[in-house]
Amino acid sequence: MLRKIWLFTPGPTPLLPAAAQAMAMADVHHRTADFRKLLSRCLADLKIFVGTQNDVLLLAASGTGAMEASVANFTSPGDKVTVLSAGKFGERWTGLAKAYGCEVNTVSVPYGKTFDLNAVSGQVKDARVVYMQATETSTGTMHDVRGVAELLHGGDTLLVVDAITGLGTTRFDIDAWGVDVLIGGSQKAVMIPPGLAYLSVSERAWQRAESAKSPRYYFDLRKERKAQVNGETAFTPATSLVAALAAALDYLRAAGGGDLAAGRDNLISNAEITAEMTREAVKAVGMTLFSEAPANAVTAAVPPAGIDSSALVKDFRENFGAVVANGQGEMKGKMVRFAHLGYFDYLDTIGIIGALEHVLGRATGKELFGKGLTAAQSAYRKMRQGDRVAVA
Amino acid sequence: MLRKIWLFTPGPTPLLPAAAQAMAMADVHHRTADFRKLLSRCLADLKIFVGTQNDVLLLAASGTGAMEASVANFTSPGDKVTVLSAGKFGERWTGLAKAYGCEVNTVSVPYGKTFDLNAVSGQVKDARVVYMQATETSTGTMHDVRGVAELLHGGDTLLVVDAITGLGTTRFDIDAWGVDVLIGGSQKAVMIPPGLAYLSVSERAWQRAESAKSPRYYFDLRKERKAQVNGETAFTPATSLVAALAAALDYLRAAGGGDLAAGRDNLISNAEITAEMTREAVKAVGMTLFSEAPANAVTAAVPPAGIDSSALVKDFRENFGAVVANGQGEMKGKMVRFAHLGYFDYLDTIGIIGALEHVLGRATGKELFGKGLTAAQSAYRKMRQGDRVAVA
Repeated sequence: MLRKIWLFTPGPTPLLPAAAQAMAMADVHHRTADFRKLLSRCLADLKIFVGTQNDVLLLAASGTGAMEASVANFTSPGDKVTVLSAGKFGERWTGLAKAYGCEVNTVSVPYGKTFDLNAVSGQVKDARVVYMQATETSTGTMHDVRGVAELLHGGDTLLVVDAITGLGTTRFDIDAWGVDVLIGGSQKAVMIPPGLAYLSVSERAWQRAESAKSPRYYFDLRKERKAQVNGETAFTPATSLVAALAAALDYLRAAGGGDLAAGRDNLISNAEITAEMTREAVKAVGMTLFSEAPANAVTAAVPPAGIDSSALVKDFRENFGAVVANGQGEMKGKMVRFAHLGYFDYLDTIGIIGALEHVLGRATGKELFGKGLTAAQSAYRKMRQGDRVAVA
Repeated sequence: MLRKIWLFTPGPTPLLPAAAQAMAMADVHHRTADFRKLLSRCLADLKIFVGTQNDVLLLAASGTGAMEASVANFTSPGDKVTVLSAGKFGERWTGLAKAYGCEVNTVSVPYGKTFDLNAVSGQVKDARVVYMQATETSTGTMHDVRGVAELLHGGDTLLVVDAITGLGTTRFDIDAWGVDVLIGGSQKAVMIPPGLAYLSVSERAWQRAESAKSPRYYFDLRKERKAQVNGETAFTPATSLVAALAAALDYLRAAGGGDLAAGRDNLISNAEITAEMTREAVKAVGMTLFSEAPANAVTAAVPPAGIDSSALVKDFRENFGAVVANGQGEMKGKMVRFAHLGYFDYLDTIGIIGALEHVLGRATGKELFGKGLTAAQSAYRKMRQGDRVAVA
């Protein structure tokens, strides 16, 4: 039987066809007026997508590159920084800050949990920078960015947020909240392949960048700012990905009836609905949610006791062509993760839940047909206006 | 919410990504060694796909062009021909044969029915040519090509079969059965856009072409045969579609582990499974099958009394981005047609059935969640080896 490739991973996510086409045709030199126009349009659109008046810069790097830039540009060796860590990506902040010689206070909660604002309050206020995730992809958890930002009001601490899977799945108002730096990646909700990172930088953060002493060259944001304001880049940009990103942002603008912010909000609603469908489905087939505060970017579902998620992941792949994520690191074997960020719709979501019922049914010896599917359909109907049916 | 475009129409069918890519990059001149090599490879592969030792020729035309060629090349004005007609495409044969001045004996059965071989036996033997469909797309009906071929054994009658939706969905052995001409189209099971037709021509049919007096120029198959044996074409070929077709045939070869005939058989099994899933689903939600002999190419499903299928088609499109076919001509409003030919898999099929339960539920006021889905899952499990589950 035919098996298409179905990516349900929290990055890379399914490629938008219009972006794929733009990417394939991006036969452009980066030191030309054509490219300057393309990049300027992209940066202006990214400001709308991120929802900020601050500068947004693009880097030819994956998301971790922008995370590194956010350490190198805003710290000096010996700076006291606080990392709020609740998973593999929280741990990455700690690794990065240590690599640059910061004195790191890592405030950890167990995998699957989020932070108690009262408990962390005393740990963040004296830090030079607080680093956190908007959504912790490894555990499918949403953190309270607004709450942390409020703890820092009136102080001198910068707040840097990895929103790599948070953007396009979560509602932010970063200028009002006072988020200094927010980071996104290309292979996530913006529906293009890996290779680009972007970040917004507040005026306060720019001032810090001037005095910061950590070493930086490729990731020197001051050089990029100077170049990108003119549609240039300090180093060779990833031109085909920029073309793809422009096409994806055009798609979102069209999805918002000509209004990119409305299109982004539609994209977030889409993640909310497909995530809710999936959460209800996995519970209905006897799995549990790993996270106490589930993100809409990705659902981490724990199989019943005695079932290794690695076998489920393999069955999805071999029998349905579906690529779902296993747990990372020590969480491997303990969960299946289904993504909702970006280019997923009703049919995709119902399809993967149908496959789940075969896969988990085989593993548990239970008859699961229809259990997750009907739960997902009910969730969809409940969340979507206009989807009303007179129930007999 | 996001709505992808989901084609579930019996042509055009979903585009194979590798074919789309080849098509986009087909920057080739047709009078070059590169193109001759490409076309020769395509024609050799088409012989395997069709399953014949006869010549297979490609035309820059849609399927109706190859139908016309099969009248213009094998008849003379005044020839007695028989058309076996059971739907819109049967009627097309009659229209074509009349346009060329044939004396047409149209043997009709009502829409949704197929032919009783005993009843047609006396109507076919004296004809110069018998024209029929392998599958009548307008009603979702499979006809007995082998049975008709057997009626003609030992005689002088040519058998011409429109297999435009039959190829890749139905098992044929046309050389053993004695099918003189078999016609296919590009936007069907071979997963590329419209614009190419292909047909196999027996030696007996070539002899008829020499004596036939009907007028022909663009569709003169003798000119095409002479050119295509050298990788040339009599007129400008649709080069990008040829490149796409070559890529699609490569995909099928890979799907057969390096054996194109095995890949084609997998494609047919795929249509058989997705069709059976759909048939069981539509019955489970209270629709009926329009056809007494359902084809695996397309399922024609009749809604409950009082429900206009046009409203269902509109709801599929507007709420799920799914393009399903309405009835054609006087069948409009009376059925929804779901295609299975080409690039469809388990997730697609479950997805559209999930959507059907919303759409039909809204129209009937009945709660249908899970009814069609579980019927489809059970059909899938029953038909697929290796998909075994211990039922609790």
